[in-house]
Amino acid sequence: MGQEFLNIMDPEDVKKIIDDIPTNKRVEKILLGDSLNRVIAEDVRATINLPPFRRTSMDGYAVIAEDTFNASEDYPVSLKLIEVIGAGDVPEKKLRSGFCTEVSTGAPLPSGTTGVVMVEFTESNNAEILIYESAAIGQNITKEGSDVKEGELLLPRDTRITPDKIGVLSAIGMKTVTVYQQPRVAIISTGNEIINPNDKLTYGKIYDINSMTISSAVKACGCIPVHTDIVEDDYSALKNKINEFKYVDLILTSGGTSAGTGDVLREVLDDLGEVIVHGVAVKPGKPTIIGRLKNDEGLKYLFGLPGNPVAALMVFRVFFAPFLMKMASISTLTHSNNNVQTLKLSRRYRPARGRLHYVLVKIEGINAIPILKDSGAISSLAEADGFIKIPKNIEILEKGDSVQVFQLVDF
Amino acid sequence: MGQEFLNIMDPEDVKKIIDDIPTNKRVEKILLGDSLNRVIAEDVRATINLPPFRRTSMDGYAVIAEDTFNASEDYPVSLKLIEVIGAGDVPEKKLRSGFCTEVSTGAPLPSGTTGVVMVEFTESNNAEILIYESAAIGQNITKEGSDVKEGELLLPRDTRITPDKIGVLSAIGMKTVTVYQQPRVAIISTGNEIINPNDKLTYGKIYDINSMTISSAVKACGCIPVHTDIVEDDYSALKNKINEFKYVDLILTSGGTSAGTGDVLREVLDDLGEVIVHGVAVKPGKPTIIGRLKNDEGLKYLFGLPGNPVAALMVFRVFFAPFLMKMASISTLTHSNNNVQTLKLSRRYRPARGRLHYVLVKIEGINAIPILKDSGAISSLAEADGFIKIPKNIEILEKGDSVQVFQLVDF
Repeated sequence: MGQEFLNIMDPEDVKKIIDDIPTNKRVEKILLGDSLNRVIAEDVRATINLPPFRRTSMDGYAVIAEDTFNASEDYPVSLKLIEVIGAGDVPEKKLRSGFCTEVSTGAPLPSGTTGVVMVEFTESNNAEILIYESAAIGQNITKEGSDVKEGELLLPRDTRITPDKIGVLSAIGMKTVTVYQQPRVAIISTGNEIINPNDKLTYGKIYDINSMTISSAVKACGCIPVHTDIVEDDYSALKNKINEFKYVDLILTSGGTSAGTGDVLREVLDDLGEVIVHGVAVKPGKPTIIGRLKNDEGLKYLFGLPGNPVAALMVFRVFFAPFLMKMASISTLTHSNNNVQTLKLSRRYRPARGRLHYVLVKIEGINAIPILKDSGAISSLAEADGFIKIPKNIEILEKGDSVQVFQLVDF
Repeated sequence: MGQEFLNIMDPEDVKKIIDDIPTNKRVEKILLGDSLNRVIAEDVRATINLPPFRRTSMDGYAVIAEDTFNASEDYPVSLKLIEVIGAGDVPEKKLRSGFCTEVSTGAPLPSGTTGVVMVEFTESNNAEILIYESAAIGQNITKEGSDVKEGELLLPRDTRITPDKIGVLSAIGMKTVTVYQQPRVAIISTGNEIINPNDKLTYGKIYDINSMTISSAVKACGCIPVHTDIVEDDYSALKNKINEFKYVDLILTSGGTSAGTGDVLREVLDDLGEVIVHGVAVKPGKPTIIGRLKNDEGLKYLFGLPGNPVAALMVFRVFFAPFLMKMASISTLTHSNNNVQTLKLSRRYRPARGRLHYVLVKIEGINAIPILKDSGAISSLAEADGFIKIPKNIEILEKGDSVQVFQLVDF
């Protein structure tokens, strides 16, 4: 009955194999308003000076600084108001000694201005302005290009676009931005027992879970999931389906990877290319497969997840998500390191022998409570807040032991 | 020139005022495939048993356990194979003593089965199967409903939808899910000096930054930004624009909030309702305004951000984002606590006197490097990785002091 696994591999070796798979980067131009969380694909240089003109950083009066050098609380200097300039206005009158212009924050400064006195240190008496403070040369003036000069590097390629970075690009009037394309990942659920949502559940069948969970996880990794119908556990059906997707960047299958009777993925991969991983020493997730495809179009690799939904998501998280994020040019750091917490194990736990064991946990306060269900239990997905990793050489974890919990925040 | 701030308030008092603003929750039904990161608005109960039928958890042979009680490595028991059942198949033959059925993981079990022997402990000889291990009653059998029983609570309302939770909902064949609606937030940039992207930059004008940054930040908080044209700093223009948006859940404006000449927002708010906050003791962000509107439709509040983009984003983050997330039923915990790091200040820093001071920092290794630009500098948005909070009573921070850095991961 069935085939044996080719060669159960160490998880670190599998990670290395995945890490060595080359990724193709393509770029596209999109609207800035659609660019949140995307990644800039080329250096962006300033096309204008910022600020684009000399302006005041305060509400007050533009003056010739020398006019105010003797001003003090007790002996104010009196200047004649010649113009009022709001933000967006254009000053028409040049400043001369003895005169001043009222300016609002952000307004351009009349030529001749060498300082701005804040409104708090002045008193207005119709067209006569009393200045109670001596203005230093350059005071409250922001020079043209003092923030960023035309031609200067604004954002280097590979910058992730946050609202702040959108602000930087908006400042130079950009409407579109060149970003890396989001890789397309086809998701194929295989199995004679699985049916589509809303279909009538007949005896022996179960609803498809992996199409939905894996495509959501693919999205969370910055890639575009491409759906397809459920494929029966049949050599030709599976081979034809894979051949339909030669244009995508990666295929993810689930099911059809264990050593059981109905498992045809390995046969198909042997024919379309070669199996480079079949079986990993982890629990859950032993029946994980990686195939390299002979194909002149884009598609070069297929990652096969176990059919069991809990195992499929765990293998996806641990082995495949970092690769998808790399394809999508998203730094994996922002997605993982922030989500690790050190908690106390709520009870004694005996892990699997000889395999790296991933255990789903529920978080309650400072406690990590292992979920003691078998990996086929859907309810463990409902309860889990995170997971812990137990290396294969650990025999037992005691109640109260410190464990690193990887939170399931993003996927 | 201009009006004074009504009453500069303590930031904690402003947070309390915002926290007390009631939020309206509406629900909607959406496709499960579109529900990633949304929040479930009603308790979801299982509509079927999980698993829906009694099945095997291993590849092997369904047996009557008693038949195998004497089996051992040396004295195998021989059983006759009567049927082969793969996952998705329906068994047709009832098991009787002396017989067995080959079953693949996930396959339904023939009636009469009381145990499953793993394939590893058997040997097949055509229709004769040698059993080398005694099967306990119930061994490797997953009972119907043993994971989840029909009617049982699967996911409580207010659960955030991750790929795992999508898996749980898929398991019962759900195609749509009832979630909280995403609140609509209108974004209005005001100012005579700001122009749209791609428009020709004339003297005295600058490109609009806040429309883009604030709407991206609104998205990151789980709300839907509603855009509009730039509004001039003019009483009627602003009043008409606010009246256009009576149907949204909140208006966010930027600009027009400081005490300068051209500032009309406060006047408009006085007429449409009342100003409840005008001026907060923080740097940057002093000119922050909150208005309560008299309106029979949905809209009841307007939050006014400073015009300066750096200040606008900071005030949004610190004061308004938690409220938007609350409106969107997103737990603020997942979005903030994970993103705090303790780092060393790279240099001595003297904060603002008498105001809580938010300082943007660049992160390099274990160091937080304060960005020493004035809050009008766009380039600080390009460089910043996070910010630190310096309470108003701190006179100076020394080089090497530990600081809590809030990372700008999400917005």
